[in-house]
Amino acid sequence: MAVCKRLVVVGVGLIGGSIALAAKRHGAASEVVGVVRSQASLERAGACGVADELTTDLPAAVAEADLILACTPVGQVAETLLSAAAACPESAILTDAGSTKAGIVAEVEQGLAASNASPTFVGCHPLAGNHQTGPESARADLLEDRVVVVAPTNATPAPTIDLVTRFWQAIGATVVKMSPAEHDASLARTSHLPHVIAAALAAATPEETLRLAGTGWRDTTRIAAGDAALWRDILTANRAEVLAALDSFDQQLAAFRTALATGDDDGLQQLLNQGRQRRDAVGD
Amino acid sequence: MAVCKRLVVVGVGLIGGSIALAAKRHGAASEVVGVVRSQASLERAGACGVADELTTDLPAAVAEADLILACTPVGQVAETLLSAAAACPESAILTDAGSTKAGIVAEVEQGLAASNASPTFVGCHPLAGNHQTGPESARADLLEDRVVVVAPTNATPAPTIDLVTRFWQAIGATVVKMSPAEHDASLARTSHLPHVIAAALAAATPEETLRLAGTGWRDTTRIAAGDAALWRDILTANRAEVLAALDSFDQQLAAFRTALATGDDDGLQQLLNQGRQRRDAVGD
Repeated sequence: MAVCKRLVVVGVGLIGGSIALAAKRHGAASEVVGVVRSQASLERAGACGVADELTTDLPAAVAEADLILACTPVGQVAETLLSAAAACPESAILTDAGSTKAGIVAEVEQGLAASNASPTFVGCHPLAGNHQTGPESARADLLEDRVVVVAPTNATPAPTIDLVTRFWQAIGATVVKMSPAEHDASLARTSHLPHVIAAALAAATPEETLRLAGTGWRDTTRIAAGDAALWRDILTANRAEVLAALDSFDQQLAAFRTALATGDDDGLQQLLNQGRQRRDAVGD
Repeated sequence: MAVCKRLVVVGVGLIGGSIALAAKRHGAASEVVGVVRSQASLERAGACGVADELTTDLPAAVAEADLILACTPVGQVAETLLSAAAACPESAILTDAGSTKAGIVAEVEQGLAASNASPTFVGCHPLAGNHQTGPESARADLLEDRVVVVAPTNATPAPTIDLVTRFWQAIGATVVKMSPAEHDASLARTSHLPHVIAAALAAATPEETLRLAGTGWRDTTRIAAGDAALWRDILTANRAEVLAALDSFDQQLAAFRTALATGDDDGLQQLLNQGRQRRDAVGD
């Protein structure tokens, strides 16, 4: 059933495009509008049929919007939502799909307060990206059975949390609620650190050995293929937590090194087993 | 076409079972015999139909063998092949599928020389494992389009290299020839280091954040689910090279840390781009 009438998705690449397709498939919104930045993007997204209507005109698109979802790179989310807030109905609800939350949430809340804007906002993060980009890779089932973090603050009105939660559930996702700070600390461990490690491992592999890269190397480095500028923004937006996560990883890796260097083969097996158990707890 | 008459595969788990199935499918051997260690393994492998004949009796199985392939854990390869050498025809060729080469090759060559055994040997490594184990996961196409390293020494007779090369090609694999030492140095980078990193990352992830593990974490840690005892043996058999690979990785990771900690965001993006380019050079 429809959770809202007019959904406006700003940025219809892999994530935004998939959410727009899912909203249509599940009838979570009666009308799905996609906002893009350029004529070229408009044609590209149009060819993929990701939304009922596509436009480059954000103010016009949001003028009668019920729910506005920013799926832009993290560095543009706050600006996008504050522009939308200046042009949308007072009753509209703003949200986003950014990979970091504390900075975005603070910036949007402060911006809304400063302009006395009435639309309400709650930050979100669907955990469903991969290394692909663009509307061509959008799929209606990308969020099926995936977790979406909804990250309210003490200032977030309950009806706003409620509507956004129902929207994600309507398109098949599981909602997990936590504060923006808790989100950023957790995602530093489960997403941002893995990205740094995958990139460092790929970069550390000598070119002449790449023909011997099997399934293990391919899996372990896959996310290193992600867009470098997007990931620079994510990592720098969550700098302190990523550095803390790097510390924990370094300690763990040092334990492996010590076991290997000192011939502590039982200790090495124990460390491998700890990794295995943690991995097995998650599943494929 | 058949490369040999009687192929004996010792150990018919994921790798051995897949090679046995592929040898039948491609007709690379007229007869495929699997050797297992216990009655229980015999029943398990029998249920999977991986070979024409299964037995726990190694000497009997190899008595008329043309090609004997050890697919046991790395710690048992040399012993298995030397036992086979004592019971097989003088014309038989011995090979293996172990993930490390220098130690195994030296041990088998020395053992054969010491016993004046006539069978010849060349070490091999099919790059096709994954985190699964057991005959249930064996598939005839596991080596299709995969690389198999053939690692001769100066002592290896050319006809031995030739027959083994033709066998791997007959089942759809691509053969790459290099010395055992070069193999171990390369695989430390493309396989053994990724395993250590995946295990360290999995172990460093706090249990309470695992519900937020998305595709990136799952890919990056997937191989950590591999058997800990098997991997302990691989890592310790290639200790020096794995430690050297860890050094390169540490340097790379330190560069990421410095860029992140000092606010060198351009440098960070450059590092991410280096990782991306190296990853893109390999493909999915």
